[in-house]
Amino acid sequence: MRKTHANWMLILPALCLGLSLAATAQTVAARQADEAAIKAAVTEQADAWNRGNIDAFMSVYENSPETTFVGATTLNKGFQPILERYKKGYANRAQMGKLTFKDLEIRLLPSASGQIEYAVATGRFHLDRTERGSANKDDGVFSLVWRKTNGKWKILLDHTS
Amino acid sequence: MRKTHANWMLILPALCLGLSLAATAQTVAARQADEAAIKAAVTEQADAWNRGNIDAFMSVYENSPETTFVGATTLNKGFQPILERYKKGYANRAQMGKLTFKDLEIRLLPSASGQIEYAVATGRFHLDRTERGSANKDDGVFSLVWRKTNGKWKILLDHTS
Repeated sequence: MRKTHANWMLILPALCLGLSLAATAQTVAARQADEAAIKAAVTEQADAWNRGNIDAFMSVYENSPETTFVGATTLNKGFQPILERYKKGYANRAQMGKLTFKDLEIRLLPSASGQIEYAVATGRFHLDRTERGSANKDDGVFSLVWRKTNGKWKILLDHTS
Repeated sequence: MRKTHANWMLILPALCLGLSLAATAQTVAARQADEAAIKAAVTEQADAWNRGNIDAFMSVYENSPETTFVGATTLNKGFQPILERYKKGYANRAQMGKLTFKDLEIRLLPSASGQIEYAVATGRFHLDRTERGSANKDDGVFSLVWRKTNGKWKILLDHTS
């Protein structure tokens, strides 16, 4: 009996440690997958812009009347008004120019129960343009608020200045 | 028996409707309490600023190295660096001036399970100053990302431009 006890006293903590490590590995893998998905969405957005495709660029935003775009001095609400503002402000490829993002930092925002449905991302942008539209910033910073719905990350708030 | 059935056929849906209305009323009340708490925190922040108390102003931010402040063209990370930047940029009451917020819009961000731990707020600010510090914006827009921890709402990301 004493030997059996001694064994359990080794096996149980080892089992707990193993399960805990497995859970941690799963959490780390899930977080990496979320970060990779957001990075891919940001890359997809820049690529869409540089192809001159504003509709594809906008597909990374939630298609909702609540979706918000905050500019350097402006507040705009609603997916459709934001889309129209982009199309008006950047009427052609020359005005759109080439968009690059850098210093992208992603911060996942887990709920108290550990679920990850929200994230914020910050970074810098640079726009190389041969022709200027109504938007007049070529360098600046951005902060984005993301929500994961049915496994897809979309932007619900974009503040670019 | 037939009468008993008929009664249940009325009582059960009425009971379900009653429970559903009670749950909805509870959800609405909880949302209103969250919105009121965020509004109160924003008011508290402006009041602290207008008393010249930067420490009290900063107490509405999460005291975390992850807390982020994005300015018109700058990115700053960490509660302590942000606090020091404010103290440097606004060295005295005259430089701080009088801060007012307007057009505050709060958007609660529930999780899929209905829990509310995150929110975003947008609005405009105005600063009336007799002496200018290193910060040189007197009018602008802001977006704030909030998290509720132990019932307290705090800002984790502030983008002001």
